[in-house]
Amino acid sequence: MTAGTKLSNPSTYPGSQGYPRNQWYVAAFSNEVVTGSLLQRRLLDTPVVLYRTESGEAVALHDRCPHRGLPLSAGKQIGDRIQCGYHGMEFGTDGRCALIPSQSTVPGALSVRSYPLVEKWQWLWIWMGDEAAADPALIPDHDWLGLTRKGYSAVPWFMMEMGGNYVYLHDNLQDTSHVTFLHPGILDDGELAGAPFSVDEDAQIVRLTRKVSGLKFPGPVAHFFRVDENRTYDRTLTTETFAPSISLAKQSLQDAGDSTIPPVEFYALNALTPASMRSTYVFHTVATSYEAAFQEADFDKGRVILGQDKVATEILQQRFDEYGETEERSVRADKAGILVRRMIADMIAREADPQAPALAAAIPATQDA
Amino acid sequence: MTAGTKLSNPSTYPGSQGYPRNQWYVAAFSNEVVTGSLLQRRLLDTPVVLYRTESGEAVALHDRCPHRGLPLSAGKQIGDRIQCGYHGMEFGTDGRCALIPSQSTVPGALSVRSYPLVEKWQWLWIWMGDEAAADPALIPDHDWLGLTRKGYSAVPWFMMEMGGNYVYLHDNLQDTSHVTFLHPGILDDGELAGAPFSVDEDAQIVRLTRKVSGLKFPGPVAHFFRVDENRTYDRTLTTETFAPSISLAKQSLQDAGDSTIPPVEFYALNALTPASMRSTYVFHTVATSYEAAFQEADFDKGRVILGQDKVATEILQQRFDEYGETEERSVRADKAGILVRRMIADMIAREADPQAPALAAAIPATQDA
Amino acid sequence: MTAGTKLSNPSTYPGSQGYPRNQWYVAAFSNEVVTGSLLQRRLLDTPVVLYRTESGEAVALHDRCPHRGLPLSAGKQIGDRIQCGYHGMEFGTDGRCALIPSQSTVPGALSVRSYPLVEKWQWLWIWMGDEAAADPALIPDHDWLGLTRKGYSAVPWFMMEMGGNYVYLHDNLQDTSHVTFLHPGILDDGELAGAPFSVDEDAQIVRLTRKVSGLKFPGPVAHFFRVDENRTYDRTLTTETFAPSISLAKQSLQDAGDSTIPPVEFYALNALTPASMRSTYVFHTVATSYEAAFQEADFDKGRVILGQDKVATEILQQRFDEYGETEERSVRADKAGILVRRMIADMIAREADPQAPALAAAIPATQDA
Repeated sequence: MTAGTKLSNPSTYPGSQGYPRNQWYVAAFSNEVVTGSLLQRRLLDTPVVLYRTESGEAVALHDRCPHRGLPLSAGKQIGDRIQCGYHGMEFGTDGRCALIPSQSTVPGALSVRSYPLVEKWQWLWIWMGDEAAADPALIPDHDWLGLTRKGYSAVPWFMMEMGGNYVYLHDNLQDTSHVTFLHPGILDDGELAGAPFSVDEDAQIVRLTRKVSGLKFPGPVAHFFRVDENRTYDRTLTTETFAPSISLAKQSLQDAGDSTIPPVEFYALNALTPASMRSTYVFHTVATSYEAAFQEADFDKGRVILGQDKVATEILQQRFDEYGETEERSVRADKAGILVRRMIADMIAREADPQAPALAAAIPATQDA
Repeated sequence: MTAGTKLSNPSTYPGSQGYPRNQWYVAAFSNEVVTGSLLQRRLLDTPVVLYRTESGEAVALHDRCPHRGLPLSAGKQIGDRIQCGYHGMEFGTDGRCALIPSQSTVPGALSVRSYPLVEKWQWLWIWMGDEAAADPALIPDHDWLGLTRKGYSAVPWFMMEMGGNYVYLHDNLQDTSHVTFLHPGILDDGELAGAPFSVDEDAQIVRLTRKVSGLKFPGPVAHFFRVDENRTYDRTLTTETFAPSISLAKQSLQDAGDSTIPPVEFYALNALTPASMRSTYVFHTVATSYEAAFQEADFDKGRVILGQDKVATEILQQRFDEYGETEERSVRADKAGILVRRMIADMIAREADPQAPALAAAIPATQDA
Repeated sequence: MTAGTKLSNPSTYPGSQGYPRNQWYVAAFSNEVVTGSLLQRRLLDTPVVLYRTESGEAVALHDRCPHRGLPLSAGKQIGDRIQCGYHGMEFGTDGRCALIPSQSTVPGALSVRSYPLVEKWQWLWIWMGDEAAADPALIPDHDWLGLTRKGYSAVPWFMMEMGGNYVYLHDNLQDTSHVTFLHPGILDDGELAGAPFSVDEDAQIVRLTRKVSGLKFPGPVAHFFRVDENRTYDRTLTTETFAPSISLAKQSLQDAGDSTIPPVEFYALNALTPASMRSTYVFHTVATSYEAAFQEADFDKGRVILGQDKVATEILQQRFDEYGETEERSVRADKAGILVRRMIADMIAREADPQAPALAAAIPATQDA
């Protein structure tokens, strides 16, 4: 190794460290959970069944009958209960067994875990960790996310499951220098990779900002952002990660010729929820400072972009599984991604030991630090 | 855990314990083994090739050429020998090498194991354990099974391979409270799960009996059992396990209005032979107290029922493989299934140590014991 | 086990020992590597990307971007460099990073390994071991192989990837007694398995020779070798292994009635390159002492023959993976194959320890030794 080389820390390589459990994660879009239907999810390596009572309350139970282990999601909803498809035992929204067809009494210990679930905007937030710590105030501010901000419009676009560790996706989303190469011609005209940037962080957020001035957008990009391809803009792209699960990419396009026009803002949100160490649910959402009236072609473009990220993520996971190589050499543009990794690593360490020291000092950031 | 809760013993969880080897297992239906054709099976994690000599004797050899390891089943039958498809060595019914094309002498040590095989009724019983202990008298009584009983008619229905441990199937078959939920509308009209039952056992048999009086059968169920949908019956369903491999479900339908009519008896037999710890051959057979003249629609119904058991078995296996959860809470209806698990566990323990104590005392049975 | 029985040594069972790394292996046929296209290969469990510069020089780089691990083969060729498809970093033929789009300087340590590559005849030979030892003089003599011999004609036929350890293929190719049974009717008329043979070896070559005199060839075999089906021949089949990667099968067909006619020679070469312990690239080539003007039907016949070897190889690998049985009993015809195994085992042992003793004394060869 050449003198002075700085390597990323193998202990933060995606897949090396697990996930924080005492955090809220998005379990589903609201419209995925419907009365009368049982939705099976794997969340943080745990089987969960989601359903909705007759009055519309969303419920999340451990998806395994405590009797002989069949997934409850293989049964059916009867009133507000789930009936196991094997021997007909019924479980209520609190997870307690309410009926055993083969006997008249129900032992008190026959129950499954019921997970705290908060429905907010069009997301169902689940808490998979220590129930006593499940404070809804820890959910990120939905105004800040643009979902409930006055004057903004927010639409759930789609859920995409990706066959790779969630940290590969944080790496991807946090370092926008990839946009020019992985998504050529879709989100920029080649200028983003080389644009100057700054990085900052606070307790749970890492932020990278790239600015490009005096840009014109080619037609398809202009159409995607609903700006005028004949006018010139100052572009600010801010990627903010609210660890461990939310990535928010804010496009702010300011008319360069008329500063009195408010900037056009386009927020792409990805809620990342680990299914396992090798797969991640991505709940993709867009919020805009205008009424966009998105159409199928826009969703398709979103699927193309996320699909490219999915391909990269899955190749990285497959390569890791096949060859086990974890060495990385970081450059300046990785600074924000490395901060996200550290933040997640610290969360995990402090769940095991609240006095664990921060990793910040231990992980060299970049070749040029 | 709530005080007083009784859990099943994780050491008897399907897949935890292996299989008894010093037992007879069904290797195939007679009609699966034909002169001139080599049948490949995996039995108790061992490769076996089955074939029939020109005079009709069925033979079972270890399915691996001792020279370079090609399966003998990839070769061909020449007279009463198998010729390996790689270098042409030939092996006789005793497993000894009889010819090496590339040299004129055959070393005495070149041989494969020949497994004891008994053809009885239309089943080929194999012994995979210590050959000295292979006593055909240990095969369960075929009169008791209804296969060769005077006045009864018995037909091999089909073989179905299931992707799960054989003990999941014993659990399934021994606890008939599942019938109402896993096979809705096919074998009962909802009454079986709640029917009173009794359990008893002897040395190698566990028996659970459920009785329901004054039943009428809906048309399709009546037709399946060949009874009159307009008459009323007293139903006795007895499930008997002859450990480790035979499950016998006896339906006895007594005309409630005329006790002089002999009961209609319908025996569903499943011979369970582990292929591996994660897959099981099920040889499904029906014996009846009458000439049923079964037709394709009956076999199809049998395939639907077994197919539902297969789905449950495979989901349980997949879930165990994926999540590793083994905790179980047993109820009264599990008593017979737990006795079967114990009996198999004792057989395995005593193959390793003839003085091993019985598990009976060590395994709490149910929540309500 | 019978007294006096000789077993092959389990330590040389295919898959037990790895591969020599300080050896040249064929990475590709020349025509597989084209300017503007990136060829991905797994060689000795290592990811490699092959491409050709604008001036035609073939290049082999480690196929993993040192920055965040995407395969370089997922990028594209730009001039003589590869551009990574993720963040656009560019790497030259020496493996050094030449450009990072997101910053103006390139740290010296950002590079991938460039593997020694020699283009000879129509093969690209790669060296995956210690670079200081990569002496092109160690590549086997291409005149000896028949590829560049005066008067001979040589054609690359096809590459076939086989799902098994390369040593299974050496076993196969070195013991021609398999030809009669695995390739019935294609390469002989039943006479090869029983033909007398002799075995000799030198430092890196093992040679087995089978001779059959006074043969007529059935039509299809005669046509394949371009001899006259009405004339009689003395056939010499020599299989030579140049360990660890080249197998050369020489057919020499001498007109039995006229010794003044030079023999017709047909060389089938297989360059075996391990992709992993469970898969092997086979580069199949034919050289002849005449201008054969091979046609599609000849290539198809070659594919049939290699396809039969592939089936046997893959069954052996699958069986080993499934059951783990490694016991083997060797016969006289295995002598050459066992010498090849020893030679490879010795190469591997001496890479770890140059003073390692030869295995020759430790491995009993055959039942009849």
